[in-house]
Amino acid sequence: MNYQVKVLRAEGYPRMPWKNGGGSTEEITRDAGTGLDGFGWRLSIADITESGGFSTFAGYQRVITVLQGDGMTLCVDGDDTRPLLPLDPFAFSGESQVSCTLLGGAIRDFNLIYAPQRYSARLQWLDGEQRFFSSASTLLVFSVSELMDVRVGDGVSQLGRHDCLQLDGNSGLVEVSTHGACCVVELLQN
Amino acid sequence: MNYQVKVLRAEGYPRMPWKNGGGSTEEITRDAGTGLDGFGWRLSIADITESGGFSTFAGYQRVITVLQGDGMTLCVDGDDTRPLLPLDPFAFSGESQVSCTLLGGAIRDFNLIYAPQRYSARLQWLDGEQRFFSSASTLLVFSVSELMDVRVGDGVSQLGRHDCLQLDGNSGLVEVSTHGACCVVELLQN
Repeated sequence: MNYQVKVLRAEGYPRMPWKNGGGSTEEITRDAGTGLDGFGWRLSIADITESGGFSTFAGYQRVITVLQGDGMTLCVDGDDTRPLLPLDPFAFSGESQVSCTLLGGAIRDFNLIYAPQRYSARLQWLDGEQRFFSSASTLLVFSVSELMDVRVGDGVSQLGRHDCLQLDGNSGLVEVSTHGACCVVELLQN
Repeated sequence: MNYQVKVLRAEGYPRMPWKNGGGSTEEITRDAGTGLDGFGWRLSIADITESGGFSTFAGYQRVITVLQGDGMTLCVDGDDTRPLLPLDPFAFSGESQVSCTLLGGAIRDFNLIYAPQRYSARLQWLDGEQRFFSSASTLLVFSVSELMDVRVGDGVSQLGRHDCLQLDGNSGLVEVSTHGACCVVELLQN
């Protein structure tokens, strides 16, 4: 075993209100830096309480997934997306001009933002029992189950809703099993 | 779109008998080289007709999955594995001394062999409808369904049993959907 595993608990995520008042962000984890700058990748949860514009992140790639609520439609550089419903991930460039229109009331969403020049990324929502082998240096399992097990190598962790397992420093091929609804994000430094 | 997609058909895979007579190998695809040398990664199907020793591949990592037949147990450097049943993948070092004991009659298996010093790899068996985002430079979808659809970006390919979709040259984040039982292998040059 040449890696470290930690479990980040949802009640500990720091929350930051948006400048425009349309929502707030809880940061789950990131590679480095503070505030809105300096990270190579970041996972976060946003609460969007009203339709409005998104911040731009030039030089970053984004994947957004609605977690709770009716959903939203994004307008990306003038083009409307399909209605984005819970657990339906959508990728877009952080440089795009983006605004969201809520389909109903407030929503929560889950965000991966990363710098493709610094990292290669992979994102997949899984359900039920799944098993895979990965050589990503950083692997994150974000739970949307009330309670789920994640096995990494010989170790088992239990995740509650919105808890996140973080594996760092992997340099081999690690076997991972998930038993529940979750998002698996894998990152590899370029 | 900055990548190429091709579909490799199972009837076209070249077959090579083993020197020890215990089986034969069909090569699905590889990155480069010929014969048993020079590749950085290779996908193949093996027919094992009798229990016996495996060839060693020093400097390579392997993941093996039984496709058809009752299954086998491997002895890896003196330790017996669990019974390896169809679609139950197992990873081991190519440097290990390995012999197989068939649980019943002849089997077919599916093999990923790669050089970890040259490539990072990921392998996952999927079933049903699945969707993910990947920035792997090479992505392979090996079908064990009679007929399945794979969507890569805006293009849809149909795969028969043991056909393999190969995407090369990806440098962005590509969206992939699979509809059927298949193995997804992703490779990224280090």
